[in-house]
Amino acid sequence: MNREQLYANILRKQSFLCVGLDTDVRKLPQCLVERQEKEEGFDAIFEFNKAIIDATAEYCIAYKPNLAFYEAQGVKGWMAFERTVKYIRESYPDQFIIADAKRGDIGNTSKLYARTFFEEMDVDAVTVAPYMGEDSVTPFLGYEGKWVILLALTSNKGSMDFQRSPLLTTPKGEKPNADGGQMELTGERLFERVIKRSQEWTRDSSPSGEAGRGLDALMYVVGATQGRTFEDIRKIAPDHFLLVPGIGAQGGSLEEVCRYGMNSQCGLIVNSSRAIIYADSTERFAEVAGEKAREVQQHMAALL
Amino acid sequence: MNREQLYANILRKQSFLCVGLDTDVRKLPQCLVERQEKEEGFDAIFEFNKAIIDATAEYCIAYKPNLAFYEAQGVKGWMAFERTVKYIRESYPDQFIIADAKRGDIGNTSKLYARTFFEEMDVDAVTVAPYMGEDSVTPFLGYEGKWVILLALTSNKGSMDFQRSPLLTTPKGEKPNADGGQMELTGERLFERVIKRSQEWTRDSSPSGEAGRGLDALMYVVGATQGRTFEDIRKIAPDHFLLVPGIGAQGGSLEEVCRYGMNSQCGLIVNSSRAIIYADSTERFAEVAGEKAREVQQHMAALL
Repeated sequence: MNREQLYANILRKQSFLCVGLDTDVRKLPQCLVERQEKEEGFDAIFEFNKAIIDATAEYCIAYKPNLAFYEAQGVKGWMAFERTVKYIRESYPDQFIIADAKRGDIGNTSKLYARTFFEEMDVDAVTVAPYMGEDSVTPFLGYEGKWVILLALTSNKGSMDFQRSPLLTTPKGEKPNADGGQMELTGERLFERVIKRSQEWTRDSSPSGEAGRGLDALMYVVGATQGRTFEDIRKIAPDHFLLVPGIGAQGGSLEEVCRYGMNSQCGLIVNSSRAIIYADSTERFAEVAGEKAREVQQHMAALL
Repeated sequence: MNREQLYANILRKQSFLCVGLDTDVRKLPQCLVERQEKEEGFDAIFEFNKAIIDATAEYCIAYKPNLAFYEAQGVKGWMAFERTVKYIRESYPDQFIIADAKRGDIGNTSKLYARTFFEEMDVDAVTVAPYMGEDSVTPFLGYEGKWVILLALTSNKGSMDFQRSPLLTTPKGEKPNADGGQMELTGERLFERVIKRSQEWTRDSSPSGEAGRGLDALMYVVGATQGRTFEDIRKIAPDHFLLVPGIGAQGGSLEEVCRYGMNSQCGLIVNSSRAIIYADSTERFAEVAGEKAREVQQHMAALL
């Protein structure tokens, strides 16, 4: 899916909601757990997802299964993950599917991950961690219509530990002299450098293949809890889509995210997981999830 | 496994070799591929690992399956991974098992990963990416006898992009003033801050539970290609074990790693993957892998 298609979906549905399928086996409604115990071959994780998807697809433009929740169930979880992706792909082909995997490894290994997610699973996007640098990210960038969503400034408390650290610049990336003589004081923070430098890793589609900004290949994760920092991010990535987790359970505000982060083509995919999928734990769980998703969608329609 | 046991194994075997089980389905010996085609239920990935393990166990103290290679095979790969871990655990209980997963997510999700790897899989250690900070790492630190191996300075070219970036320090982690007035020029690089700060995240085992250095809970990944930077790392982590990938195919030198990185209790686990497991692709693949592992072990014995 390219940027224009994504934006067209947002306009048509008046929504930029992503539903996070963080399906925790310990939080499944009792009714599904009981069926799984009775019926052989009944996969409660997949059936939960399917019901949630059917109830929310009208109100969202993306789904984001977080791999951790599936891997926690081992082989069974992987099967549920694969079935979920296949179900979305076949039943709701206009949905954007994000594998929230936060991968990042040396080049050869990242190539394998890219192949797994983009060829085997056929998801639209994978979240990738930037710590290991260019060759850990670029293998994900070679797929037409597929996206890397790079961790930039996350929604958790630990985002203060390294992501916001201000950097020195050195002419050749050398270690600075003890007196700092060679240094420039830029105050650029790590997440800003990640955003700037990663834009150099993409190639535009012109015959010369010059470095481009990757508007059709690259998004950034920016947590909803980051408030006005969205303004700083828009200075260096005015046109990129941002994937925004952290509204709802983590305390981020949708209005604030839109006020500081929205651009002329929306430029936001806002994720909500727990507040939607666990809104109710009775047999009405899917229905209530649909209602919650609809509430967020209407809020978003007003903000668009 | 604690640090003393690990060191005892190193002394007894005169080896600090970790064999990387980066089992790529496209590189399997033809003989295994053919058997898989003929025999129902024959799992070529697991059988490859089993043969490699049987041939090398005498010469190494650890195994490191890289999850990417297993995930690339979907459900089948996960089954092979689980069987491999179980096989090592049961047949060679003194081996240290590292799940090379490079995970790192918000607290709740990291908790799930920790549970998966330490409770379900029962591996000894997991590699973790530091970008998301404290709450993405600490959930892995609560397991007695289990280890976090934090990415610090990796072996790939992209380690230059962010890990070696020199940082400014600010009194309260604030953004610096434009004139840099509040700043101190420390020249501390990102990987150094990762190593220093992560030592504050562990608690010692005294009743007061004060911040400790995590010598029995925390190791660091430092690529064999990083040469004399090992000296800088030993200044801030003199006693920690380092997991060192990158000798062999990636070009790192074992002598150099030992010269600059070894401490009084060895303090090194040096990984080799391709150079051992793919040394031969005929029916003799396991035998040759054993010979290669033995060569490395003898080299290590001389360096100990």
